Amino acid sequence: MEIKVLKDILDANKQIAARNRQWLDSEGVLAVNLMSSPGAGKTSLILATIKQLKGKIKIGVIEGDVSSSLDAETVGKEGVPVVQINTGGECHLDANMVSNALSNMPLPDVELLFIENVGNLICPASFALGEHKKVLISSLPEGDDKPFKYPLMFDIADVVVINKIDLLPYLKFDTDAFSRAIKGINKKVKIFPISCATGQGVQEWTSWLLNQMSRR
Amino acid sequence: MEIKVLKDILDANKQIAARNRQWLDSEGVLAVNLMSSPGAGKTSLILATIKQLKGKIKIGVIEGDVSSSLDAETVGKEGVPVVQINTGGECHLDANMVSNALSNMPLPDVELLFIENVGNLICPASFALGEHKKVLISSLPEGDDKPFKYPLMFDIADVVVINKIDLLPYLKFDTDAFSRAIKGINKKVKIFPISCATGQGVQEWTSWLLNQMSRR
Repeated sequence: MEIKVLKDILDANKQIAARNRQWLDSEGVLAVNLMSSPGAGKTSLILATIKQLKGKIKIGVIEGDVSSSLDAETVGKEGVPVVQINTGGECHLDANMVSNALSNMPLPDVELLFIENVGNLICPASFALGEHKKVLISSLPEGDDKPFKYPLMFDIADVVVINKIDLLPYLKFDTDAFSRAIKGINKKVKIFPISCATGQGVQEWTSWLLNQMSRR
Repeated sequence: MEIKVLKDILDANKQIAARNRQWLDSEGVLAVNLMSSPGAGKTSLILATIKQLKGKIKIGVIEGDVSSSLDAETVGKEGVPVVQINTGGECHLDANMVSNALSNMPLPDVELLFIENVGNLICPASFALGEHKKVLISSLPEGDDKPFKYPLMFDIADVVVINKIDLLPYLKFDTDAFSRAIKGINKKVKIFPISCATGQGVQEWTSWLLNQMSRR
């Protein structure tokens, strides 16, 4: 019975996600779902991307948090449209929350939409939002064993951004073993090692984003 | 309706947690629920504690993970009894899982029991396990804004261990602002800044643990 209820929720979510996707497509928006542990650098990646792509493409941001609007305020200072979702305790965004946020987003003024999920490596993996690409940010200080411990998240990701590579000299972290572990779970995934703090590797990530947009 | 179901689940969990607590008390075991983001250092804190207290007190460990038994294997090498719980997708431990684990733990040989929760700053805060103390590990690389973004977790904690303080020179992190933010949410909380990598501050933490045990 419990499993049935969960399945119903996930089925309903999938239907709303499919509608969100159609809506985004009709507006010509590429939507990217950013997922990670708390503090891995979702907001920092958004800020680094805005810095590089400002004036080139129109970016919008949906910020998902359990509470507070800190990230929305930070991103809003960059002059891009931002909609905050407070989940009120829920540990992940769902398609219905994103549908409500889309109603409040000036979509004709957006070409690339970042949806910053709640900081959590588990439940966000199970809830499609209508996004075109799923991006997992995994930061060096979290350790190189994360693919084994949160395999579903690594399995569903289109891209893994390895953030905070500037800290490599100060940590025990085997970059090759980490990449091998990711590829063992998900052969097709793209991996971008970057540092939002120093800017290293950000260009490769934004080039990939631009390439995704040009294919549409 | 949805809220009612959740309330029922939480009520049932509370009852099982109360039974776990009685069971632990009758065996003279102090149980500590360790919670954090993925990779903040729950297992490292357990290992650092075992290193300092081995031969002084008898330690047991329950390891909670979505999947894998990596941490249980690591901890088991220290020669302490370990029981692994794989939640199979659930993003937190609950009292029933812990009850099953307790049945498999040689409690007469345990004085201090660590329960390592699933790496998640949200849902574990809502599920009592029967523990005597709730310890939140928050690591420097996660950022000093975490109390504002995950307030419930900071509110329910008896102790906040600030881990990875050896990385302070390489990060933007305001330790005073962080402590103030925690105290703003939770006046009674004890805060231990430590580094499991260098051992700095671990002694203060283990002294606190021993003090808790002597009071029983």
